[in-house]
Amino acid sequence: MSILIKKAKIITQNKKREQYQADIFIDSDRIAEISKNSISVEADYKLSGKDKLVLPGLINTHTHVPMTLLRGYGDDMVLKNWLEERIWPIESKFNSKSIEIGTKLAMLEMISTGTTSYIDMYFFEDAIGEVTQKIGMRGFLGFAFIDNGTPEYSYEELIPNCDKFVRRWKNKDLIKPVIAPHGTYTCGPETLQKSLEIAIKNDIFMHIHCSETREEVYNVQRQYGLRPINQLKKYGLLNDKMVLAHCSWITKNEILDIKKGNSKISHNPVSNMKIATGGYTPVPELIDSKVTVGLGTDGAASNNCLDMFETMKFCALIHKQHRWDPVILPAQTVFDFSTIGGSKCVGMENYIGSIEEGKIADIIMLDLKNPHFIPKFNLISHLVYTTKGSDVCTSIVNGKPLMINGEFLTLNYDDTLEEAENCAYELIS
Amino acid sequence: MSILIKKAKIITQNKKREQYQADIFIDSDRIAEISKNSISVEADYKLSGKDKLVLPGLINTHTHVPMTLLRGYGDDMVLKNWLEERIWPIESKFNSKSIEIGTKLAMLEMISTGTTSYIDMYFFEDAIGEVTQKIGMRGFLGFAFIDNGTPEYSYEELIPNCDKFVRRWKNKDLIKPVIAPHGTYTCGPETLQKSLEIAIKNDIFMHIHCSETREEVYNVQRQYGLRPINQLKKYGLLNDKMVLAHCSWITKNEILDIKKGNSKISHNPVSNMKIATGGYTPVPELIDSKVTVGLGTDGAASNNCLDMFETMKFCALIHKQHRWDPVILPAQTVFDFSTIGGSKCVGMENYIGSIEEGKIADIIMLDLKNPHFIPKFNLISHLVYTTKGSDVCTSIVNGKPLMINGEFLTLNYDDTLEEAENCAYELIS
Repeated sequence: MSILIKKAKIITQNKKREQYQADIFIDSDRIAEISKNSISVEADYKLSGKDKLVLPGLINTHTHVPMTLLRGYGDDMVLKNWLEERIWPIESKFNSKSIEIGTKLAMLEMISTGTTSYIDMYFFEDAIGEVTQKIGMRGFLGFAFIDNGTPEYSYEELIPNCDKFVRRWKNKDLIKPVIAPHGTYTCGPETLQKSLEIAIKNDIFMHIHCSETREEVYNVQRQYGLRPINQLKKYGLLNDKMVLAHCSWITKNEILDIKKGNSKISHNPVSNMKIATGGYTPVPELIDSKVTVGLGTDGAASNNCLDMFETMKFCALIHKQHRWDPVILPAQTVFDFSTIGGSKCVGMENYIGSIEEGKIADIIMLDLKNPHFIPKFNLISHLVYTTKGSDVCTSIVNGKPLMINGEFLTLNYDDTLEEAENCAYELIS
Repeated sequence: MSILIKKAKIITQNKKREQYQADIFIDSDRIAEISKNSISVEADYKLSGKDKLVLPGLINTHTHVPMTLLRGYGDDMVLKNWLEERIWPIESKFNSKSIEIGTKLAMLEMISTGTTSYIDMYFFEDAIGEVTQKIGMRGFLGFAFIDNGTPEYSYEELIPNCDKFVRRWKNKDLIKPVIAPHGTYTCGPETLQKSLEIAIKNDIFMHIHCSETREEVYNVQRQYGLRPINQLKKYGLLNDKMVLAHCSWITKNEILDIKKGNSKISHNPVSNMKIATGGYTPVPELIDSKVTVGLGTDGAASNNCLDMFETMKFCALIHKQHRWDPVILPAQTVFDFSTIGGSKCVGMENYIGSIEEGKIADIIMLDLKNPHFIPKFNLISHLVYTTKGSDVCTSIVNGKPLMINGEFLTLNYDDTLEEAENCAYELIS
């Protein structure tokens, strides 16, 4: 498969953060050539760059894709009631089929809003992997560990099935298995250690919820005598293959520990605000300490959408407001989080997150013919402060087009919506 | 002109907040009939409600429409530098022609994202009125007073020209003149009194920036011995025809004064956060005190877009996060702000803000065939937490269609974008 994009304005996100107009030739899964001169070559797809902006696909570093089926099912509620009365009862009814359907809906939403890679944490991750691979998205799929077991497996079944899961997906192009102990408040030391063993044995990434709410921090401290970050440190999980979701209630000392371990942070401002965790991920301090930061939407049940452009605007604005400083988190920094930062979170900074020759072709295109892009003084500013997911017209993952000018190539739009709507109503009935 | 909308799911925003499927017949400027039975009548436009959602047009209670031309021209800057180095030098170059062009761009953006009415504050408001009327939007146009004069008029010219402006626009259908002293830090007592006189004489609304930043509150207190709200109260401007923009730094006592005067509040969360004012409009307390609250985007230079759906999400989330309470500002309350609340801000609650027989037909339609609307458990929740301006497909103002299924009827899309882009670059050159 080959794709030629002609005369495109490119936001490269290369080291110099260059922007220029060029032709891009994609051959197989790679960006084979970028040239300011015209590239003349045969290609399966030839796309015009006129009135378009080409950028690296966005990387969503924390979500629970099947939760699209629970979108809007219980908003404006206290966290405990929301989980106990709404989320958990439905989750207990999930099976491979409903997970597949919810995943498809999420893929449709992510592709159409510019996300090309995502880190997930859920159960029935095999089903999520199958759908993701078939549709052609890039998924880092977190097999969830919880002391109480998951709706898919009892606690005893988790280890052997996780082993199987990892073996199955380890050498795939698009899917990478991830080990995901749910959190230090839901996973005791034994679970943390066992999950770490599998990760080390297979040299793969881990993903965990960490210091999202004050209650969590308080409970972990009370139960184990350590706050979540230190609990992870004690058991060796604060390492360079760990992606910590949230970290809204961490201290300056904990930032130093995170940096020492070279763990990564997934910041989820929209979800944190909607759930009203009250905490603020200390992003300026994380930057100062050179900790890698990525952005995530969290699941659709607590956001309620998967639009990474929206998440970028929330990220930039919430910290400006909180610190009384309009200068912190400038647009370029926030855009870096969702591209370069995301690629570092999953250890793929040499492969995705920027548009450079030799890198994998995870690329999106925006339609600039929209009033909110005019005037085009500062495109990076526009990407964070005015772009909507709906501006994305084309999405290419691993060199394959998933959407071209709004048409989906690997998903049936109408069927996906209808199937998901029916499945969701069946689940709550 | 007549319009028939068939089998539409309607969010009425009537007193009972009913939602149901019905036909809607619009005759001239009015909603002539809403019926759960099929309406059979000839109409100039017949629109299918299939997969659509019909709701009242949104009311943007604070903006500066021509500032679309300054979108992205200086972001991530300290307020003072931003104003002195970027905004004011360009504003001094504005003339009727550039104002017209910027207004057209804003109309295109507002129509396409669901706004049908807006309150403005700027200079060259005659030009804004002409464009708005020609395009068919509903504008409450604030003629700005500033002690130093505006780029259009010297201080001495303001009163006579404001008189002319009011006479010119007073009895129009779509345009209502508004008197807009810029703020208590830019307008001394004399200016406040003179502007009030014109408002009283003509029985029209007033609009002012009030208690947006701490610096403003501090400076007004130091200069006049009173905080902005009390300064307005002293000179009689805290009355029932006053719309106060921002009020991010007000006290509980000031809320009582606002309520006593029955003044209205325009809350602009996105702009406040982007400029990093640090303050939080005390929306929960305003609700408790039964003060009317509307939502605004502010100008595109400090937002940077005019999407009221985005503003609703920011409104709901910023207060949840700030108060550590996911229950405050539920979706229905926030949606009320941008419809009913907005209509009360401009004294038109008997005419716009809801879909009811006899009311003026300011109506928008959303396309529900989008992954972020699935499943459709709670449409009000979706309106605040997942809807994007881009979901708006049809916009009707005063019974006239301005956009039908994405096609603009009173504006040329391509020309408007091109003209605005050229004009903006000329201004900064």
